[in-house]
This record gives sequence, structure tokens and C-alpha cells, in this order.
Amino acid sequence: MRAVFLAAGEGKRLRPYFNRPKPLVHLLGLSLIERNILSLRECGIKEFVVITGCYADEIQDYLGNGEKLGVEIKYLHSEDWELGNGVTAYTFHRDYRQNEKFILMMSDHIFGLDLLKTFIDEAGNIKENELLIAADRRLEKVYDLDECTKIKAEQDYALKLGKQLHDFNAVDCGLFIGTGALLDALSKAISQGGYTFTDGVNILAESGKAKLHFVNDFWIDVDDQASYQYCEKILLQSLVSAKDGFISRHLNRRFSLRITRLLARTGITPNQVTVISFLTAVAAAFCFALGKNLCGGLFAQLSSIIDGVDGEIARLKFQKSSYGGLFDSILDRYADFVMVIGVTYWWYSATNSPVALLVAAAALTGIPMSMLFKEKYHALTGKPFLPERYDGIFRYLPANRDGRLFIIMLGGIFNLLPAALVILAVVAHLQTFIRLYQARRLM
Amino acid sequence: MRAVFLAAGEGKRLRPYFNRPKPLVHLLGLSLIERNILSLRECGIKEFVVITGCYADEIQDYLGNGEKLGVEIKYLHSEDWELGNGVTAYTFHRDYRQNEKFILMMSDHIFGLDLLKTFIDEAGNIKENELLIAADRRLEKVYDLDECTKIKAEQDYALKLGKQLHDFNAVDCGLFIGTGALLDALSKAISQGGYTFTDGVNILAESGKAKLHFVNDFWIDVDDQASYQYCEKILLQSLVSAKDGFISRHLNRRFSLRITRLLARTGITPNQVTVISFLTAVAAAFCFALGKNLCGGLFAQLSSIIDGVDGEIARLKFQKSSYGGLFDSILDRYADFVMVIGVTYWWYSATNSPVALLVAAAALTGIPMSMLFKEKYHALTGKPFLPERYDGIFRYLPANRDGRLFIIMLGGIFNLLPAALVILAVVAHLQTFIRLYQARRLM
Repeated sequence: MRAVFLAAGEGKRLRPYFNRPKPLVHLLGLSLIERNILSLRECGIKEFVVITGCYADEIQDYLGNGEKLGVEIKYLHSEDWELGNGVTAYTFHRDYRQNEKFILMMSDHIFGLDLLKTFIDEAGNIKENELLIAADRRLEKVYDLDECTKIKAEQDYALKLGKQLHDFNAVDCGLFIGTGALLDALSKAISQGGYTFTDGVNILAESGKAKLHFVNDFWIDVDDQASYQYCEKILLQSLVSAKDGFISRHLNRRFSLRITRLLARTGITPNQVTVISFLTAVAAAFCFALGKNLCGGLFAQLSSIIDGVDGEIARLKFQKSSYGGLFDSILDRYADFVMVIGVTYWWYSATNSPVALLVAAAALTGIPMSMLFKEKYHALTGKPFLPERYDGIFRYLPANRDGRLFIIMLGGIFNLLPAALVILAVVAHLQTFIRLYQARRLM
Repeated sequence: MRAVFLAAGEGKRLRPYFNRPKPLVHLLGLSLIERNILSLRECGIKEFVVITGCYADEIQDYLGNGEKLGVEIKYLHSEDWELGNGVTAYTFHRDYRQNEKFILMMSDHIFGLDLLKTFIDEAGNIKENELLIAADRRLEKVYDLDECTKIKAEQDYALKLGKQLHDFNAVDCGLFIGTGALLDALSKAISQGGYTFTDGVNILAESGKAKLHFVNDFWIDVDDQASYQYCEKILLQSLVSAKDGFISRHLNRRFSLRITRLLARTGITPNQVTVISFLTAVAAAFCFALGKNLCGGLFAQLSSIIDGVDGEIARLKFQKSSYGGLFDSILDRYADFVMVIGVTYWWYSATNSPVALLVAAAALTGIPMSMLFKEKYHALTGKPFLPERYDGIFRYLPANRDGRLFIIMLGGIFNLLPAALVILAVVAHLQTFIRLYQARRLM
């Protein structure tokens, strides 16, 4: 399926803040239209048609043929874009392929990935003469309701649409699956002097052909400074992983999301962030070895926070890669190892106690066990190991990386590093034994 | 699909050696008929019909309703089994279900698992009035050709079968996919005084309905002492894993297969063997710690050998389980850890050199890296990491467990344990770095 973007408007309201065409306004490191292209690429869409009007050259210069984004982009220019977005959309008839279904999207709206995926899945369920409209009936959640195109819906079909509609029960999200019937309707509307996209859609709605798909995920029309900031906030919140441990969720993310917000604007890659997180851990290790425990503890926690940033940037800027995941996993293990070795160096130098060596050995051998166990379980059963479901009461053991580094930080701050190391070692092995015991029933 | 076993005969030639009905003769821990049932269970067959004759009660008492084997077994008794195996096979007409295709097997033949899987896959490709015969045209490989039923084949069809056939180009393996047409043919043959199974099959062959499937894997009719021993040998050889490292393949398997041959007869489980392998490693660690390096080295190698036995027994006796794989993986890591700690204890006690501690830390952290890397790669890409393809020239690094333990053994024998530990550590981390570098291109 191809995607058609309407990118012809002037975008007056955002212009004063950004001095560039609205589809090219940057938000967390990507222009609005780039984010939409990359979101759809995640849904398997590879061919794009961008309909330009006001800032045709700027947009075309910026996006090029799409190669940089791993997609194909073709441009259609609407001479009469000023008449209305119905005229702009109708421009697509020049490139329309017989019986094709296509996604039609406002290039300055931002959509959650789940919303897009679910919506595109629905494309197969509409008839060849229907239009599918992404609609939101959670009116209390809609941002800037005044500016939205309202819909009077009856069950799954739209009866009428309009910005000034008084009797409505949903709004249109600026996302559609079109068929040839849409182009016919737009043509008919234009011939009758109706130049907006809504005019065309209303012709289909009158004949019961404007089907609705009600969305459950985030979307927003980035139209002014306030909606821009709101969009930033929602996108950042969406980066928090469901797999987060307790410390990650309640402490680290508060900081890592701020760092991500700053770094997203730069060209830094997730793998570079992974290296920075590792080097921060090495700094912590040196501090520990030199007896600067407070400093080491803070570096350890900082490393843990930065360890979240690589993934956040990767998800935010569509830079996720298997290699990134592997690189992060391996470097995390090394980071933990060097910190334990740093602590041990200081402890053993200070006390010459063989207990320090024994605890260090236990900690070093315990650290990789959680990951080893989970990955092996996954490989053997084909299902991920779900600690929150399988570990029972023991899911509160701080044996994940966020918990481990938090214990090291506390050890550093309160000058209790030997105790921290003992806890680390005991928790890691205890968790392994418990899981090995529980797994007999699970597998 | 159901499987029908012919288990009515006397089995005179093996009787003197084993004092029990031939289908119940034990070979590497399982009776012949049990091995066939479990092999077919691996192919997804769950319902079995056993046709008994001579030793009906013994067989039924032994196998029961199949619950122990995780299948359903039903018995049919052939009163006239002495007339011939055609009469025995025809007994199945009492339980035959309209239009059913069924596997028919001599219960005292043993088949390679691949042979069975490929053969059963072919069942869909025969017509409803055909018979499918597993046939072997690799005549030079057939064990005891004299005793086989020969086939004159033209392309994929049998023209004639018979034990005394002079002009033949294949032999029958004792494995069939039958349809109602087979039962009709057997009935017709019996009414004409032809009581052997071959008599019935020849009626189908004459009308061009005896289709052949040519096998490429191991099968054998276990008929006498020599074929019994040959079967044992082939089954044991089939246990060698394709993923074996160099030391495993060329050294460990020579011993482990012998141990497996002995242990298969006992009730020992693969997980118990895993524990024994671990305890042997603990013994090695104690020897190292006490400075008994030769003894420790030998125990280390013994542990490595026994580490192969659990998998061999699991495959041989159809006791493979995901949990067994996980348990083995985790215990192997612990086994390696305790041996390194044992060696370090001795080295550091003797020299008080911090180098020993550094090397130990490097070895302990390096040991889990190979497995971590491979499992994570698998989880992220969905494909297994193939060292022999991806590691290039570095696949010869002894960084797998068999290589590691061999180095420890050499260190023990030649009293060069510090050097062995250094090699272990260097190789483990070197391999990780190389893989991390190479994986950028692979993923």
C-alpha cells in the first residue's frame, strides 16, 4: 500500500516559531513529515507520494527521493493548493493506480505507532467504494477540540463531518484509507465549488460510504506552540519500556527522558550513547578503586541512567537495530564487571581480607546469570521469560541492572560498598537458584 | 494418522539371547517397540494399534495403554498369526476407519528419525487406493540383504516383491503407509491362499498401486545378535551433535558414547547426569585448590566428557526437555566458575601475586561471554549464531566449553595452570570483541 501525504499548506501558526514549512518543523530530532514517513515504514509502507503546494521546493530538497529514509518518495505539485485541501488531495488522481487502496495522511499530524498499525490492518475490511476514517470518540482526551473536524457518527459510519458541527460524537484524526471512490467524491465536490477535503468526504458520508475506525492511541495535530510541546511530552512518555524495573521506572526515567530530549536534537547515535554509559561506569570503577566512594556511586547511577538513553533515542528516532541491542547487552556486562573489580580493589587493598576476594568472585559470577537464564529460557521455549509473572514474590529482588547499580550507588554514598557487593552477589545467585527451581514447572 | 505395529511373530533367532518376545528386546535402554513408538511420537503420531499373536499378553502387559509413553495404544489379537504376517496385518480391518491412511510398521525394525519424518511427510502424496512402501535402493548399504524382501522397481512404483526375487533393484524396509486398498488386497490374497504380507502387496503392485519412497537414512531389521550390535552402534553414532567443537568430536565422544551405552540400560535421567558432571567439576576444583593439579586436570576433562552424556541419553531415550537444556547450561557455567576459583586459590596462596587475581577476574568474566553473545544474537535476530560460519578463522579459538576444559586439563597435567588460566581469559574476551566487531556486518 502507498501513503499519500498532504503537505501543501502554509502552516501560519507555527511559522513564527520555527521559520520553516510546517511539515519540516523539527520535533525531538525529526521533522514532522519524517517522523510520519518513518512511522509508516515501521508498518511496512515503503512507497510515498507527497503532495506539495506552498513550500514545494523546500520540502522536496529536504526529503529527496527518500533513499536516506529507506523508502521511495514521489512528489506531486498542486498549483491550486490555496483553494483548499480537497483540491490538494485530488491532485493524487494523476498518479492513482486502478483499484488501489492508499493511506492518506495530514503530514503535520503525529500518530502513535500502535494507532497506525491497527488502522492499516483495517484497510482489508473496507469495500472498494468506501473510505476509512480514523476517528476518535474519546472527546475528553482530544487536544484542542475547537480546531478539529467533528463527526456525527452512527455506529461505524459517518453521517456528516464539519468543523462547525454542533451535534457530533467523534472527531477526525487526519488519517484515512482512500479508494478510487474518494477521488471521485473530491472531483464531484470541487465541481460543485466545495474545495475542502471535508466537502469530498461528506459526499461519501451522505451515501453511507465513510466508514469509521475508532482509535485508542495517541494522535495530535501539531498546529501551534502548545500542541508542539504537548506532542513532545507524549512522545517522550511513550519511550518508557514496559520491561522497566522498579528503579528504572521510578527514578532513572525522570532523568533519562530529559537527557534524551536534549540529545535527540543532535546527531548522536544510540551506540555512541551506549559507549558513553560504559565509560561512565569505567569512571565509577576508577573512583571506587581510588576510594572516592561517593563520587563512584554517583557515576554508577549516572551510568545506569544513561543506559536508558540509548534505547530511548533509538525508539524515538527509529534507529533501533539488533546490533544496538547486542552491543548494549555486552557492554552492560563489562560495565558491571569493571565496577565490581574497582570496588574489590579498594576493599582488598584496604583490608587484605580474603572475604573481599570471595565476595568479588561471587558478584562477578552472579552478574551475568540473570541475562543468561532469561536468554536461554527464551531460546529453548521460544517464549520470553517474564520476571513479573514467573518470579512471584522474588520479582522484587533487585537483581536486574537498574537494581544492581542502585545498590552500588547507595553503597558508595553511605560508604558501605562491601555490604553492597555482598547484597549484589547473594541476590544474583539466589535469583538464579530460585528461577532454576521454578522453571521446572514452567517449561 | 494412526500407526499399526505388527508384533505377532515368534522372533526365534533373538530368543536364545534375550528370553523375551522380540518386540520387547531391550536395546540401549528401550525395547524395540518402545523405541518405534517414541520415534513416531516425535513425528506427531499419538494413536497406535499393536497387532499381537504369539506373545500377546507379555506385550500388552509391558506397554499397557500407552499412558507412560504419552500415547494411546490399542491391541488387536490375531488368532491365526502363525499362518503368516499377511493374516496378522489383515487383522487391522476390524478397527479400520473409512478412508483412513495409516502407518504400518514391523515392530522389530529400527528406523532413523529423519527417515520416519520424511516418509510420513509423503503420506499426503499418495492416492486413496495406493500403498506407499519405504524402499532402499542403496543395496550396498543394506544390512543382511539375504533376509530382505526384494523389490523390482520401475521409477516410483513396485512391479513385484519377494524374498527370493533375482531381478531386483531395491529392498523393502518394513515400513508402509496403508489405505483401505491394502486391506482389500490382503483379504483377496488370503482368499487365494497367500498368507504373507508380500502376497497382499504384490496384488497392489500388479495393478500399479504400490508406490515407492526411497529412503536415505538408517534402518535395520533387528533379527539376530549381529544386527542387534550393528543397530546399537549406529544409534550411538547418531547421537553425535553437529554443533560439537573440535575436542568434543575428536576426543570426548569416544568416551562419552561408551558411558552412554552403559548408562542407557539404567534408569538414570539426563538431569542426574548433568549433576554428576557438575560434581566432577567441583572435585576438580578441590584438587586444584589443594595443589593436586594432575588429578584436577583429569577430573576437569572427565567432567567435560560427562557433560556430553546427558544430551546423548536424552536423545537416545527420547527424554529431551527444554528444562534439561536450561539446567545443563546454568550448571555448566557454575562448573567453570568453581574450577577457575579452585585454580586461583592455589595460585594466589602459592605466590601472593596480584596477577593471579587479575587473571582470575578476567577468566571469570570471560567464561559466560560466549554463551551470552550467542543467546542474545539468537534472541535479537531470530537466527542461531553459527560460529563455524561467522567466526571465520577465529572459529579455531578454543573458547567453547570443550576447548576451555581441555586447556585446563593440559594445565593440570603439565603443571601450567597459571598459563592455562591466562589463555582461557584472553581467548574468551578476544572472541567476544571479535564477534562484536563482526556482528555489525551480520545483523
